[in-house]
Amino acid sequence: MSGLTRIARAQPKGDVVLDYFRPNIRSLEGYRPGEQPQQGKFIKLNTNENPYPASDGVLRAIGSVDGARLARYPDPHATAFRAVAGTLLGVDEDWILCGNGSDDLLNILVRAFAGEGDMVRFSYPGYILYPTLCHIQGSDQETVPYEKDWSMSDAFTAKSKNIRLAILANPNSPSGTVLEPDQILKIADALPCPLVVDEAYVDFAEENCLKLVKERSNIVVTRSLSKSYSLAGLRFGYLIAQPDVIDRLSRVKDSYNCDTLSIVGATAAISDQKWRAENQEKIKSTRIRMQKALVEMGFQVPDSQANFLWCTHASHVAHDIYTKLKSERILVRYMDFSDWGDGLRVTVGTDQQTDALLELLPTLL
Amino acid sequence: MSGLTRIARAQPKGDVVLDYFRPNIRSLEGYRPGEQPQQGKFIKLNTNENPYPASDGVLRAIGSVDGARLARYPDPHATAFRAVAGTLLGVDEDWILCGNGSDDLLNILVRAFAGEGDMVRFSYPGYILYPTLCHIQGSDQETVPYEKDWSMSDAFTAKSKNIRLAILANPNSPSGTVLEPDQILKIADALPCPLVVDEAYVDFAEENCLKLVKERSNIVVTRSLSKSYSLAGLRFGYLIAQPDVIDRLSRVKDSYNCDTLSIVGATAAISDQKWRAENQEKIKSTRIRMQKALVEMGFQVPDSQANFLWCTHASHVAHDIYTKLKSERILVRYMDFSDWGDGLRVTVGTDQQTDALLELLPTLL
Repeated sequence: MSGLTRIARAQPKGDVVLDYFRPNIRSLEGYRPGEQPQQGKFIKLNTNENPYPASDGVLRAIGSVDGARLARYPDPHATAFRAVAGTLLGVDEDWILCGNGSDDLLNILVRAFAGEGDMVRFSYPGYILYPTLCHIQGSDQETVPYEKDWSMSDAFTAKSKNIRLAILANPNSPSGTVLEPDQILKIADALPCPLVVDEAYVDFAEENCLKLVKERSNIVVTRSLSKSYSLAGLRFGYLIAQPDVIDRLSRVKDSYNCDTLSIVGATAAISDQKWRAENQEKIKSTRIRMQKALVEMGFQVPDSQANFLWCTHASHVAHDIYTKLKSERILVRYMDFSDWGDGLRVTVGTDQQTDALLELLPTLL
Repeated sequence: MSGLTRIARAQPKGDVVLDYFRPNIRSLEGYRPGEQPQQGKFIKLNTNENPYPASDGVLRAIGSVDGARLARYPDPHATAFRAVAGTLLGVDEDWILCGNGSDDLLNILVRAFAGEGDMVRFSYPGYILYPTLCHIQGSDQETVPYEKDWSMSDAFTAKSKNIRLAILANPNSPSGTVLEPDQILKIADALPCPLVVDEAYVDFAEENCLKLVKERSNIVVTRSLSKSYSLAGLRFGYLIAQPDVIDRLSRVKDSYNCDTLSIVGATAAISDQKWRAENQEKIKSTRIRMQKALVEMGFQVPDSQANFLWCTHASHVAHDIYTKLKSERILVRYMDFSDWGDGLRVTVGTDQQTDALLELLPTLL
């Protein structure tokens, strides 16, 4: 090794190293996921997980992977999953890109379209990951508020010099409300940039925007297996777009973003549509019952097409209810959106979990 | 939904949407991982996978995860893994950050330190992911060539106005060569920016740079379970740095970047150091035998402390050898580094796989 022995410069001090972080990273709080207690027995209605266990078929598929297969890298294209999903969705495999959860795909989309100083537009209140993704990227962000009835105004399609991407969660979180596909199409046609429709909760809804992707190259749909297939622990999502778009997005992804076990498990999950349909029916039925009971207690609860309900109350403080429920070991998600208001996002649980919540709540109000 | 019915603008055409990709993404070829044939029986010596299957303990741990656990999100901090790894490495848990493979961690590092137009420096030839990560980020990159004997010159520590990060693979790929820890320390002290030591292959080496992290806040070490624990299919890596650095890096990662199965499997793997040590001995022993035989055939093969050998030949064309081997169903990695030269990177296989290679090779020369 030539030369380096001559060097005797002082090491940078700790605080100097911290100064090397990009300014946007230094000012970043980071996305705080909902509480995930690793200890203790909680009824978890705070992170929109499916209350029913993943299917036995998924577990069997995962169990079939042997040590020799784990020693090898995964299929970088998740071909097995895309073949089954393509048949199910009526698209060729090259319309599908798989990700380590749909969060991975949302990150890929922001990175592909928005550079530093470029602008990403999304609806508000919405999925709280979007601002974090923009912040990490160093992109600007513009939020367009929903109307009080959770419809969306023309402001979402307004011209803007540096807009590069727009994102709409549909069904939306925390509201569970939807914009109909024909409304989404009008938004996409009016926008000067690509539109991402985040369909993480779409399997609990009546309609979806898949057909729009076939009609429009500027519409991208993202989906997740976390909720409707009870696979939040597996981290698997997929994205549907026209092949030219998929081709470019795939260059931004990590080569092996999905591991062998998640590809195998996700393929088994999506192959079993009977399981998904039955699970969806259970969730919907409980959701309807839960909404009725909450409204009777005086909560305002917009009609939801997701696996959660957004609850506000005219005469009770949301954070108090959250705290009291937590002390009784029921976790719901308290959310406070500045310039909008706060409320409780409550995941639809099993009937038993829902009964526990509905019996406890009146005693706390 | 108010207003949007009035809009009747033409949809953007396909090519218009493609124009919305950032210029650096449009010009990106994307990282091309080594060939991963999903069909057919190959002796795979091309992607540095461990030729031995993952341990039964890892499979048992994965098999212990039930459907209810898969339905819940993973522990965002991979606490179980960090507890075991911390004890093993002699650091507290807050010195460790886990990732979806060490590629995920390298991506996090580039994103945390280098913005658009900032410069990342790395050695050359080295891991071919580094330039891709910079390209996606929109960062500039500067490569510093190794000397002919795979030592590193003073150029690596030269001052530069906009350098924000430096990366050294150690052991390096494709050479398998190492810089000693005291050399790495001198480089870190001479650099004006943080230094990442990519130790993906360190479990096959004689020394490592862990102790340097304890002494210097500007040194970050990344590691992988892909190679030394036979877990390329699982996607799990970890990073060691001082707690202030970890704290900031963790804000850049995806909240649930590691899935439940990979955390459980990785924790079981790192808990079994007897398995790792025995596997390492087998690989090293085969590596020594393989190098000797290749040198006898006229190959130039630098001493390797990794699980692969870099082979060049004065009188035979590397690509021809690669092609002939492939036609006999032995895959090695042909690599062509512009302004440097080409060669074959050959993974150390089982003794049987190595025998097959060593018997075939002389018939092709």
